[in-house]
Amino acid sequence: MTHRFNQCGLLEGPAVAAAPVWSVDPRTGKQREQVAVEATAQEVDAAVRAAHAAREALADRAVRAAFLRSAAAGLEQARDPLVGTADAETALGQVRLAGELARTAYQLRAFADIVDEGAFLDVVIDHPDATATPPVPDLRRYKVPLGVVAVYSASNFPFAFSVAGGDTASALAAGCPVVVKAHPDHPALSERVAEVLRRAAAEHGVPEGVVGLVHGFQAGIELIKHPLVAAAGFTGSVRGGRALFDAAAARPVPIPFHGELGSLNPVLVTEAAAAERAEEIGGGLAGSMTLGVGQFCVKPGLVLVPSGGAGDQLVKSLADAVAGTDAGVLLDHRMRDNFIAGVAERAELPDVDAPVTPGEGGEHTVSAGFLTVPAAKLTEEGDHDLLLEECFGPVTVVARYADEQEAKAVLSRLPGNLTATVQLSSEEAAGQGRGPELLAELTPLAGRVLVNGWPTGVAVAPAQHHGGPYPATTSTSTSVGGTAIERWLRPVVYQNAPEALLPAELKDDNPLGLPRRFNGRLER
Amino acid sequence: MTHRFNQCGLLEGPAVAAAPVWSVDPRTGKQREQVAVEATAQEVDAAVRAAHAAREALADRAVRAAFLRSAAAGLEQARDPLVGTADAETALGQVRLAGELARTAYQLRAFADIVDEGAFLDVVIDHPDATATPPVPDLRRYKVPLGVVAVYSASNFPFAFSVAGGDTASALAAGCPVVVKAHPDHPALSERVAEVLRRAAAEHGVPEGVVGLVHGFQAGIELIKHPLVAAAGFTGSVRGGRALFDAAAARPVPIPFHGELGSLNPVLVTEAAAAERAEEIGGGLAGSMTLGVGQFCVKPGLVLVPSGGAGDQLVKSLADAVAGTDAGVLLDHRMRDNFIAGVAERAELPDVDAPVTPGEGGEHTVSAGFLTVPAAKLTEEGDHDLLLEECFGPVTVVARYADEQEAKAVLSRLPGNLTATVQLSSEEAAGQGRGPELLAELTPLAGRVLVNGWPTGVAVAPAQHHGGPYPATTSTSTSVGGTAIERWLRPVVYQNAPEALLPAELKDDNPLGLPRRFNGRLER
Repeated sequence: MTHRFNQCGLLEGPAVAAAPVWSVDPRTGKQREQVAVEATAQEVDAAVRAAHAAREALADRAVRAAFLRSAAAGLEQARDPLVGTADAETALGQVRLAGELARTAYQLRAFADIVDEGAFLDVVIDHPDATATPPVPDLRRYKVPLGVVAVYSASNFPFAFSVAGGDTASALAAGCPVVVKAHPDHPALSERVAEVLRRAAAEHGVPEGVVGLVHGFQAGIELIKHPLVAAAGFTGSVRGGRALFDAAAARPVPIPFHGELGSLNPVLVTEAAAAERAEEIGGGLAGSMTLGVGQFCVKPGLVLVPSGGAGDQLVKSLADAVAGTDAGVLLDHRMRDNFIAGVAERAELPDVDAPVTPGEGGEHTVSAGFLTVPAAKLTEEGDHDLLLEECFGPVTVVARYADEQEAKAVLSRLPGNLTATVQLSSEEAAGQGRGPELLAELTPLAGRVLVNGWPTGVAVAPAQHHGGPYPATTSTSTSVGGTAIERWLRPVVYQNAPEALLPAELKDDNPLGLPRRFNGRLER
Repeated sequence: MTHRFNQCGLLEGPAVAAAPVWSVDPRTGKQREQVAVEATAQEVDAAVRAAHAAREALADRAVRAAFLRSAAAGLEQARDPLVGTADAETALGQVRLAGELARTAYQLRAFADIVDEGAFLDVVIDHPDATATPPVPDLRRYKVPLGVVAVYSASNFPFAFSVAGGDTASALAAGCPVVVKAHPDHPALSERVAEVLRRAAAEHGVPEGVVGLVHGFQAGIELIKHPLVAAAGFTGSVRGGRALFDAAAARPVPIPFHGELGSLNPVLVTEAAAAERAEEIGGGLAGSMTLGVGQFCVKPGLVLVPSGGAGDQLVKSLADAVAGTDAGVLLDHRMRDNFIAGVAERAELPDVDAPVTPGEGGEHTVSAGFLTVPAAKLTEEGDHDLLLEECFGPVTVVARYADEQEAKAVLSRLPGNLTATVQLSSEEAAGQGRGPELLAELTPLAGRVLVNGWPTGVAVAPAQHHGGPYPATTSTSTSVGGTAIERWLRPVVYQNAPEALLPAELKDDNPLGLPRRFNGRLER
């Protein structure tokens, strides 16, 4: 589609001034080092072209798998300096970050296994059938990589949702080179992780351009508009994600945009559950909502708790646990400002109380807290709808409901979510009462539905689904788990191609031993 | 998401005047009967709400399968009157239309089989694994229906891509009710087919609102904006499809839009193939490009033929065959006007010849023809790019290339296609020469790649893929074949849900016998 390049006007706009990119310590607000300069349109173009040129080197699945495994090993070998840099830039703590690095390496290896297995190719072979209506010729379908994938890193997972995170791992596994837009909260780490990936690529003869890295807000916009970018993955805010989604859709050739934008992650506590486990639930909620200083996309942000004594006890347990939480450092000072302003605006709404007041901690920290509100305030459109918007940081909203209908009315008004959780009593969990009904009611709200657990913690597993109705995600796909690879592929079918011309994946005798559908029958 | 309804403003706009909807005979241009009036915003809203209310009735897969089979039988039972109405409105001919009805019934039954098998649910079950990084809880994933699907009918397939066509069949199979926007070229047939579907629904206790039908351009726009519409399928023009795609993306809650817009369907004839089979290829091309008066989305619209004697012979065979083709009636008079103007504009370009002139036939018909142009005129941007745009009707463009590089240069400039075809010699088909290389070169261009065949005729089969890079389609999905069902589903995973609360599809002992991935292993 060379003739479309000029329509995009990428190289015709005014040159963007090269602004410095600083690594900043959120514990002090001070600049640590200048890491790079923001990429110009020309530099974005060069990164995308270099990635595009690396496609052929990824065509061999064995090379992809080996590359991913070397990348995992490279991360582990450089663990201490990488974790040190990450902690200096994000204040997330060395223990959490070492765990996140291990998860990221695990994920790279999991995608290597997926590449080896080859089920993701979705091979379907139909021999000719003259009796069908209309007759069926010889048809052989599998999936091919889309092309260069743009990856927009997250602030809150400097390893697992950033340069070597799930989007990159799944794209490389699919055979797609990537150009990563670094998150400004961890530019130094981004550069170092990119180096690890490039060294791993070079070990297997893959050009280093297979993983591009650019810094800068404007560079991110140039990237999504580039004619050679074929798809994008994003983890971040509703505002930023929607702007990029809109840009992807408005291109002369629109591209798939798999964005994870925002989620309230509602929790419903039944009367019976509160009666049975008020303290346990209150304590569990405190742990989940304050984990990582409340900076998880799956933080429970709205909790429906029954009114009455059991609910009161739950709220008291929550208050005791949250009050004992240390003040924490958020990822950057802009987030701190937004958190302080966001909780203040919410706390000022009529009938909203703050049993433990969230907000400013020390000079660079914030303190955890939570708000309560009668659920009746949330059953119809009004000022209290602000409480149904995600507030990033260590705060949650406890809505006290009078009866099942009121709780249901609030749930019916929520936008889409990554997760929805129900806390049930042991009898309800055993299938008595409204257990099955509640599970069915929560299913339309989210991509992951939990029973008697907490949404923080997203396992890397074949069945995982990290996505949900908009604005949780902008597509029906997942960014975590085995099926994340599906985002970067498209099917192609060969009709009456002679055996001699077929790729090995599509030959009758299945020399690669791939799972497939053969003449209608599933073969594994 | 009740609180978002008002943002859409659907019911707040000015009332749309109820314009009459006429059935028109394209053989005479005369009105046959008034079928309906165009739907107002209120009527679209009512149709969508009725469809939404029918979701529960589709929850049982056995009901869905039985409904689809009754719909197939209903079409067959009403075949003669339906084909008669279709022919009167489209002039496509009773033989072709009877075949298309049979195909449509076959497709409904194929989706019933897919529902029974249940592989489309993509069940993945992971038992807890404390050794993973991070630990894995109990996770059980499958796919659930998205909700109401808007289906935009095609002009050129009044059965197979219309009210009871592939979009409707796959959506109902997925558990999604539909609201169909009827095509103005066959409103009477649309009403009658909708009646067949509704009778089939009623047989199985499914509310008739499960298949809504609306007429009118403005109704189609209201439909895509309706908050309860969860996804859309479309078959039509680039202009109309892009407008609806843009509207779907611009919604407060964007929805997936699976549109099939336009395709040039390039054909490459190698030197050796021309030398070996010039007459056969010329005759085959004539048959394919004039089939159905050139009104197929997979009509070959650009054919790269070598210069020199063998190519000349191919063109002569094509000319002889096309010259002997009867004039034909297009689907409506607007299409006839566009065809006549479109071929005239193309024929006037410098260095373009018309060995058989396409254009006006009788008062209501058009005559088939083709244009030739040196391929060198198409290797760089310029006025001749008009020849790279689809022209609906019985015309194709033969570009004569001097060498392989010139042919490749033209192919590299094409937008995305539904199909790409290569005509090879017997030696090339056996794997000698550039056969495998040419297959690889055509793969990026299209969703279906054919060898030594013609793209017209789209089989209904598990491996079929009817889609391709934009503008062939607006997504990576297919509208024909078994995997078309994937468009109307989203995954949901249950975490630590007790056995007693799980749907039968996700229980360990697999009471429904579904194919699935269980603890990493594929089970079939």
